[in-house]
Amino acid sequence: MTTSKTVKELLVEMKDVSELMIDLAYSALLLNNKEIASEVERLEERMDSLKYEIRIMAMLAARTPEEAEQLSGILHVAASAEAISNAAKDIADVVLRGFANHPLIEEALSEAGEIIKIFEVKEDSILVGKSLGELRLATETGMYVIAIRRGKEWIYGPDKDVLIQSEDSLIARGTETGAEILGEISGGERRWF
Amino acid sequence: MTTSKTVKELLVEMKDVSELMIDLAYSALLLNNKEIASEVERLEERMDSLKYEIRIMAMLAARTPEEAEQLSGILHVAASAEAISNAAKDIADVVLRGFANHPLIEEALSEAGEIIKIFEVKEDSILVGKSLGELRLATETGMYVIAIRRGKEWIYGPDKDVLIQSEDSLIARGTETGAEILGEISGGERRWF
Repeated sequence: MTTSKTVKELLVEMKDVSELMIDLAYSALLLNNKEIASEVERLEERMDSLKYEIRIMAMLAARTPEEAEQLSGILHVAASAEAISNAAKDIADVVLRGFANHPLIEEALSEAGEIIKIFEVKEDSILVGKSLGELRLATETGMYVIAIRRGKEWIYGPDKDVLIQSEDSLIARGTETGAEILGEISGGERRWF
Repeated sequence: MTTSKTVKELLVEMKDVSELMIDLAYSALLLNNKEIASEVERLEERMDSLKYEIRIMAMLAARTPEEAEQLSGILHVAASAEAISNAAKDIADVVLRGFANHPLIEEALSEAGEIIKIFEVKEDSILVGKSLGELRLATETGMYVIAIRRGKEWIYGPDKDVLIQSEDSLIARGTETGAEILGEISGGERRWF
């Protein structure tokens, strides 16, 4: 147990991890990819231990009945974040059990409000050698990078220090227009945002 | 029951509604707003009926054991989307029961990977009189408009035809940089993306 993290930090992490899990679960579904689905399972274990930690921290933090009542609201939100992560794991299970190869799934994920797509980074793309923080892809194109495939490796929920390399595959979610722009940029056909 | 919708259309709608519900639930939490929380409850009822419809449609669509097996994967994903919506409703419940007024909640939501913020549209903002589709805020700034408050009315999950008016309040999610840009644009201090 990490006792150094505060209730707030734990809640932030639970929200972020649960949302990454949903993104990865739908990505696993779209690509019918068991590796990504397994990562969702691993993150689910992380969520379980975060839920345990935040309970302990909340109990230690509550000193008056009023504080306890308010902190119980936070624990409720934490439990909901964990429920979201369980649903993500259920989606990943569909992939792991081999039932994700229905063409409807791919079509549905390409027609949703926020779509998920995979982008191959070509050698002459302006993305090559730059960090995600420097590129600010989310702000510039509305596309959030969920995961990066590099050869046989995967980087899940990449942070801003990750440098994009030639031949990386970016899995990103966002708008259709954003996906078009990112497609041109990663393909090297467009050299500005 | 709407029999005209296909399994795919129902799956797309379930994914979109469940994600809108999560966004609205966290927005309700951030603003400690019972109106938004009630909308989450209403959407949960919509999800229940969508789950029922997709089950019926999947059963009607399956003609061979193989098709039935693949369609069961789709029903599993639909059930997971509904589980996500249930978790969103649980978050909304915290607001409806009056346990959402803890400062930690607001701080946590402002420090998450994707943050949620409220933006007041000033009279001289370039947003005024333009549609969301025309503005392409998500692509241009990375900020997704979750809901709009207009006087006493709310527009939840606004579509691209919604025109922004002076004095609207936009609730949007995205990156910190995107939030800074949208803040300047909605405040009328910045006149380009």
